[in-house]
Amino acid sequence: MRALVTGASGFVGRYLVRALEAEGWEIVQCGGPAEGGPYLPLDLADAGAIAAALDVARPDAIFHLAAQTFVPDAVADPMATYETNAMGTARLAHGVAAYLARTANAMPRLLFTSSAEVYGVRPAAEYPLVEALSPRPRNPYAASKAAAEALLLGAANGLGLDVVVARSFNHIGPGQSERFVVASFAAQLARIARGGAGPELLVGNLSAERDFLDVRDVVAAYLALARDGAAGEIYNVCSGVPTPIRDLLRTLILAARVPVEVREDPGRMRAADSPVAFGDNAKLRAATGWAPQIPLDRSLREIYASALESAAS
Amino acid sequence: MRALVTGASGFVGRYLVRALEAEGWEIVQCGGPAEGGPYLPLDLADAGAIAAALDVARPDAIFHLAAQTFVPDAVADPMATYETNAMGTARLAHGVAAYLARTANAMPRLLFTSSAEVYGVRPAAEYPLVEALSPRPRNPYAASKAAAEALLLGAANGLGLDVVVARSFNHIGPGQSERFVVASFAAQLARIARGGAGPELLVGNLSAERDFLDVRDVVAAYLALARDGAAGEIYNVCSGVPTPIRDLLRTLILAARVPVEVREDPGRMRAADSPVAFGDNAKLRAATGWAPQIPLDRSLREIYASALESAAS
Repeated sequence: MRALVTGASGFVGRYLVRALEAEGWEIVQCGGPAEGGPYLPLDLADAGAIAAALDVARPDAIFHLAAQTFVPDAVADPMATYETNAMGTARLAHGVAAYLARTANAMPRLLFTSSAEVYGVRPAAEYPLVEALSPRPRNPYAASKAAAEALLLGAANGLGLDVVVARSFNHIGPGQSERFVVASFAAQLARIARGGAGPELLVGNLSAERDFLDVRDVVAAYLALARDGAAGEIYNVCSGVPTPIRDLLRTLILAARVPVEVREDPGRMRAADSPVAFGDNAKLRAATGWAPQIPLDRSLREIYASALESAAS
Repeated sequence: MRALVTGASGFVGRYLVRALEAEGWEIVQCGGPAEGGPYLPLDLADAGAIAAALDVARPDAIFHLAAQTFVPDAVADPMATYETNAMGTARLAHGVAAYLARTANAMPRLLFTSSAEVYGVRPAAEYPLVEALSPRPRNPYAASKAAAEALLLGAANGLGLDVVVARSFNHIGPGQSERFVVASFAAQLARIARGGAGPELLVGNLSAERDFLDVRDVVAAYLALARDGAAGEIYNVCSGVPTPIRDLLRTLILAARVPVEVREDPGRMRAADSPVAFGDNAKLRAATGWAPQIPLDRSLREIYASALESAAS
């Protein structure tokens, strides 16, 4: 089997490539940096580059992970985020249609990684969130992903493409950017443990509850959807369980075994956030047999160990 | 009150401007042609032009009608349709945010005219369609409008803008382009009546049932929503009643009183169409007190009279 992976150099992309390799897939990895490494540069603003990547990859499956993924960056430059995340995804879908018209190659499945952010903040009775809810985005990142879903599914329905949408909730794992909450806690703790920083640990809203999956369970879900998802359908990729951020921090502090002073940082508080957000993964389980394998405690211990290693270097 | 109307030179735009004038609004009309007439050119790809239009208009309400509105054109050039309809709408919203940051002017309400096409084809039990259904676009036009809604509502929620979305179903009235079904029937009949054409009348799928409103009732709904709609909400603008296309044709033929030969034209058949599509207008009625005023028979008679006049000239 042959895969084209966009965003292959990103946090999730690197894990996905490892999982595909383990299953014996041939992979064309798109992402940066352009020089060195296995990466083919792919500018989603460039229909010609998309055509070339498809011709090279002749994929059975396309895993479209490339995106502007950080909410504050989307707030800072919303139009660029819409262009990359929504228009770029549409351009890829139409690129697939053109590729099928131009070659005798088989139809690839296109798996698009959307985000639970599209649901926005809902009444308590609507949790756990199911896929049939109408999106209600509350920030430009969420808007870009909801728009991408609409463009992709509309194009796929119109053109007869084979598209599956994964709505991913929070995911964590070793190697994630410190801009995300768990990685930030782990990195701060590792620096304190190494003696490179004082005992102060900056946090956002610890009472918020979110739905966390280990990134390896996330990519297992993507592989399962590439194999067994139904075309044109949307699937939540989530644990189904809300966990208070406070509990994650406690587990990480126990792993670090260093004295800390927890301080609230107003810059880390997002006013518009929902107090509790978690999804229903029944549709994903029923379609694919997928189930999460990695308990949260194990994820957190490995994340801390990895942060400690990074802090040493 | 001051209004900025985009798409003011279009079919609905001209009726909207008339209705606004009748209520004493001052209006800045954006649209084409650039020379002659009251129109300010406005390229929604150009953030500077949007800023200039807002500064000139200082609107209390923005009626955003400008769009690529014809499904077959969207199929022919989907990316351009996404750019105009989705990105253009997003650019307008962010233009309003920038205008508010730059001036001391009051927040305008932004009314966006979306389309019932966003619902796609649904199971029979889901009719009449309600606003809470998750969009399921089936062509690039529908996708562009669903994406525009997502970008607009996401941006509005993030930026605190005052946005209302109207999901309009089929609308008809004197002066509509012949590319739309009722106008096409009326124009063909008028040419037959004038002796400029033989008795052949080309039709698409006559058994399809759709939800038709007179364009004057549509613009009355837009005015009512500008006044009384709730910010951040979506409202169907529709009659609530499905009418077979066949019945519209019969009424027009009775009005024309000419012998015709009805012929099915494969080019007018859309394979992906739903057999029956109609909406629920309870939310619009409850919020605004709006109700349709013009019976379908009167619309059709006036459309035929107008077509007959055009055929004479």
